[in-house]
Amino acid sequence: MDFLLLLIVGITGIAALAFAFISYVRIDMFRVDNERVSELSHIIHRGAMAFLYREYKWLLPFLLIVGVLLWIKIGGAAGFSFIIGGLCSAAAGYAGMVVATKSNGKTAFAATRGMNEALTMAFKGGSVMGMSVVGIGVLGILFCYALFEDPTLITSFGMGASSIALFARVGGGIYTKAADVGADLVGKVEAGIPEDDPRNPAVIADNVGDNVGDIAGMGADLFESYVNSIIAAMAIGLAVFGSKGVVFPLVLAAVGILSAIAGTTFVKVKDGGSASVALRTGTFVTGGIMIGGAFLVTLAMFREFALFWSVVSGVGVGVLIGFVTEIYTSGDYASVKHIAESSKTGPATVILAGMAVGMKSTVIPVLLICAATLISYYFSGLYGIACAAVGMLSITGMALSVDAYGPIADNAGGIAEMSHLPKEVRKITDKLDAIGNTTAAMGKGLAIGSAALTALALFAAYAHSVKLTAIDLNDPKVMVGLFLGGMLPFLFSSMSIQAVGRAAEAMIDEVRRQFKEIPGIMEGTGKPEYEKCVDISTAAALKEMIIPGLLAVLSPVVVGFVLGAQALGGLLGGSIVTGVMLAIFMSNAGGAWDNAKKYIEEGNFGGKGTPEHAAAVVGDTVGDPFKDTAGPSLNILIKLMSVVALVLAPLFV
Amino acid sequence: MDFLLLLIVGITGIAALAFAFISYVRIDMFRVDNERVSELSHIIHRGAMAFLYREYKWLLPFLLIVGVLLWIKIGGAAGFSFIIGGLCSAAAGYAGMVVATKSNGKTAFAATRGMNEALTMAFKGGSVMGMSVVGIGVLGILFCYALFEDPTLITSFGMGASSIALFARVGGGIYTKAADVGADLVGKVEAGIPEDDPRNPAVIADNVGDNVGDIAGMGADLFESYVNSIIAAMAIGLAVFGSKGVVFPLVLAAVGILSAIAGTTFVKVKDGGSASVALRTGTFVTGGIMIGGAFLVTLAMFREFALFWSVVSGVGVGVLIGFVTEIYTSGDYASVKHIAESSKTGPATVILAGMAVGMKSTVIPVLLICAATLISYYFSGLYGIACAAVGMLSITGMALSVDAYGPIADNAGGIAEMSHLPKEVRKITDKLDAIGNTTAAMGKGLAIGSAALTALALFAAYAHSVKLTAIDLNDPKVMVGLFLGGMLPFLFSSMSIQAVGRAAEAMIDEVRRQFKEIPGIMEGTGKPEYEKCVDISTAAALKEMIIPGLLAVLSPVVVGFVLGAQALGGLLGGSIVTGVMLAIFMSNAGGAWDNAKKYIEEGNFGGKGTPEHAAAVVGDTVGDPFKDTAGPSLNILIKLMSVVALVLAPLFV
Repeated sequence: MDFLLLLIVGITGIAALAFAFISYVRIDMFRVDNERVSELSHIIHRGAMAFLYREYKWLLPFLLIVGVLLWIKIGGAAGFSFIIGGLCSAAAGYAGMVVATKSNGKTAFAATRGMNEALTMAFKGGSVMGMSVVGIGVLGILFCYALFEDPTLITSFGMGASSIALFARVGGGIYTKAADVGADLVGKVEAGIPEDDPRNPAVIADNVGDNVGDIAGMGADLFESYVNSIIAAMAIGLAVFGSKGVVFPLVLAAVGILSAIAGTTFVKVKDGGSASVALRTGTFVTGGIMIGGAFLVTLAMFREFALFWSVVSGVGVGVLIGFVTEIYTSGDYASVKHIAESSKTGPATVILAGMAVGMKSTVIPVLLICAATLISYYFSGLYGIACAAVGMLSITGMALSVDAYGPIADNAGGIAEMSHLPKEVRKITDKLDAIGNTTAAMGKGLAIGSAALTALALFAAYAHSVKLTAIDLNDPKVMVGLFLGGMLPFLFSSMSIQAVGRAAEAMIDEVRRQFKEIPGIMEGTGKPEYEKCVDISTAAALKEMIIPGLLAVLSPVVVGFVLGAQALGGLLGGSIVTGVMLAIFMSNAGGAWDNAKKYIEEGNFGGKGTPEHAAAVVGDTVGDPFKDTAGPSLNILIKLMSVVALVLAPLFV
Repeated sequence: MDFLLLLIVGITGIAALAFAFISYVRIDMFRVDNERVSELSHIIHRGAMAFLYREYKWLLPFLLIVGVLLWIKIGGAAGFSFIIGGLCSAAAGYAGMVVATKSNGKTAFAATRGMNEALTMAFKGGSVMGMSVVGIGVLGILFCYALFEDPTLITSFGMGASSIALFARVGGGIYTKAADVGADLVGKVEAGIPEDDPRNPAVIADNVGDNVGDIAGMGADLFESYVNSIIAAMAIGLAVFGSKGVVFPLVLAAVGILSAIAGTTFVKVKDGGSASVALRTGTFVTGGIMIGGAFLVTLAMFREFALFWSVVSGVGVGVLIGFVTEIYTSGDYASVKHIAESSKTGPATVILAGMAVGMKSTVIPVLLICAATLISYYFSGLYGIACAAVGMLSITGMALSVDAYGPIADNAGGIAEMSHLPKEVRKITDKLDAIGNTTAAMGKGLAIGSAALTALALFAAYAHSVKLTAIDLNDPKVMVGLFLGGMLPFLFSSMSIQAVGRAAEAMIDEVRRQFKEIPGIMEGTGKPEYEKCVDISTAAALKEMIIPGLLAVLSPVVVGFVLGAQALGGLLGGSIVTGVMLAIFMSNAGGAWDNAKKYIEEGNFGGKGTPEHAAAVVGDTVGDPFKDTAGPSLNILIKLMSVVALVLAPLFV
């Protein structure tokens, strides 16, 4: 029975990959009949690949060294699974990036034929990332589980995935913002040329950055949540229900994959229809099928519903957090309008209003996470919490497809602009891009919510594995751990904000240099050296993620050895709590500032060129590293620290 | 023996009050031979008193109602001690404010006679607050203990003090920033008149605000820490050492009072000497005598040194946190210079640099707090942690004197300006004011550090009193408590930032109205209606603190009843951790922005009137509610929630 189920799970994983491959082939077959578009897409593609190659060149030795260390200290299964986990994440990221950076130009060209063609192309491009993540995730776990037959031995699979995610998220976040700030500040502000202007040397790095940060970074983030939640559930499930408890999370994941495949077929838009409705329909269909499937699977496997309610609480909270994120960060709602209005009294009040909104926006997500925790625990204990996380992440295939669609549409807009495609085309890509901003909010909410639940599941698995009877806050060592853990997200955020600043400065200097030294660059006769800018972002991203990375990996080790397993539990608790708060705060404040600026640009409170707009731009600039670097990096920090603790737990017992 | 010791403690408390009274008499006897100075001082005094009266008019019924509720639900001792605690805090605040607002004009006038006269006057004024707090604090506790003879019955004394502190800190913080922003934005920016110009209708409210926020608010904050740490130590001490454990914290406090009295005699400056050295000498002498005294007292009472090391760890960390605060917020060090330099690229980078500095500045204070926790626990268990807090706060008499000196000197400068005293006088008051900024950093560090240790001591007392064997993070209810507790400081900060914004807006409207409607106001012939502005700040402060106050008081009650005593422990743990982080972050970011602006005003990076300066002003404006409202309010939040839990503990068992 179990074997049969695992076989079906495996086939589902292969189906996901097959789906991704078919999408890729169909994208590849689409001919772009415009040399400039092809060329630009190709340059962006090359820049993104250059980043990935250099990142992976660093990561491979890292994976091997840590893998060998784990092998020696913990055991062969741990070392091997760690390396496989890292490779799987890298593979998923690679596949997604290759296709995403190929489909941006095709989306731009498809837009010449109409909305539906462009939407289909961009969404197909995104779905390769979505399906690769879930397919490779499930198959990788299955593979390791088949080899070692004990989920507690393969927790390091998730640690490998987390390591890659750290580099992808932190490095990607630094990359994208350095390029963005450099391109904007020198190009738009100093030289007065429009956004996405080909004369700007940093424009390619900027477009590459969208892929690196929002596709590779987000993909690695969700891959990490996905596999960690499944493995944590398997580990706890083994103790509670035996092998049935191990298989159930995998079956849930399989149901999620099938739901996502079904959901994608609903992403279509007729002439005059709304692309945003199409994406939403796809998401809801996926969620609906998932809930129905979870019901049947739970009934069939357990002959009762308790676990079903745990799973539903996870799915529900995942969706609701996305909506709450939208309410606090979209220009359609009061919070963003309030920030926009505060631009009347200058940049300081814009900042204060945004900070207040960001801080307030932690309340409902926290209540939702608490509700999911209590509900799932009430019905099925700690296993229920882990299954809630799996449930929330089961729709990753669909959610990530929708999310990765955004940067592709954004890139398509840039390419359309740079290759002077007709205005109607730009209109279509603009529309697709605008929808991408909304879906990004949903994706970010899911990423944070799932990071929180996954970290809680890992925490539970950790406590379980070190066989602690209690992680007792009365013990001052635990309280000290809690304080240290609570401090780390602040230190981590401070470092990533400063890293962006340093990298952006280097970029600014380079762009200024090119404007000065390359003859004819402003007239369009001299060719900017795009590669140099790509190089600066790449080098900065790789350099700047070393210390934060070490901090994340070593803190649990040091605290575990010096203060013991209980204090390490405190460290995790503290880091999860402040990490989640800061992540929500920074992501939402950043998103709200961004959209407050856009709201003013739409003509409210004076529109472009007014002091109000200038004040809103200050907010947006502050928000950029908040929402695209520091905030998302915290998702990784809390999961990585938890999984490091879980994997190394045997050393602290 | 115990009785004798308590008698000595009581006499020491009376000595503190006598010292304060003598200072008052000597200030009162000093004649100000300048009508304008007297009048201005009098107006400020009246404004401050008006605020206190209206605040107390609300607080008295609040104290009575809650006191009666406690009487019914917990017991007579709890209800009575609560009311006494509240009244004691109010009395200390009243005494300090009366004298501070009388000594500002006298300091301005004394400055016509030289540096030492002015310093002596300002410091004497501050020392009334310092000595009133410790004297009334010790005597109040002694009185309740004498009545009920069991420290666990009088924990509500601290809760009463906390309630007053909440109103003083949150209300005071809103008051002072609303007035400050209103005065600056309309006066300096719109009308182009200098700071402290008597034509500005909000100028008096601004000066009143300095007293309300920095003297009454800070005094109530430290009073709360002071009495809560002593009572928590008494309660834990009873369980560990019997009556000796109850008496020891009080004896420590008495030693602290005597040290402070001795220390004040060292605050003198000769011609050409440095006032800052004088204040520092006084502080160090106090600390030195305190440590020596603690050594003797510990040896005499316990015949061993273990507790001495706990006390020393508290004293040491209190002083060190102050220094760290200075390093991150003073223009003499790299952090502030870095922020100032980032003004070259505009306001956004100033904000980001300040945020990064603020976040990073959490690291060392957290490490210090952890060190004090571990050291004091290692030597003497939970009692050691409580005694470390008492040790840190034993120098309150001196620290608060130095701290309250700052706003007095600041006010004196304003009065000198408004009454057109000679330039040399203004030079002296400026110097005293500048020193006040440094001492304020030390005071803020102590306030946060002591809030953290006091909250930890209260937490320990809480866990002790509900007889929980463990507050177990493995229990999802505790984890949910931790999340909710971690979220509250974010919500609380968001509310106080927005409250400042609303109050400032009302103030701006009023100042604009007066400029428009009062004939001759700009020529100095029409008299501005100062009282209206004082009124607006007062009303706003009182209104805006109701909801945050309820939030702080009710959250522990709701969580305790709904989720139980363990989850309430989690709530406290979460609120302490994120509360301390956010408080340090916001206070230090705000302080650093403030001094970065001043650093530029000294002529660096272009000086006043440049775009760099304008960018730094944005940072300063953002920092104002951070450092003077939201940050300090969190000190109160975490202590208040902890003491509410401790007092209501019997209901949750």
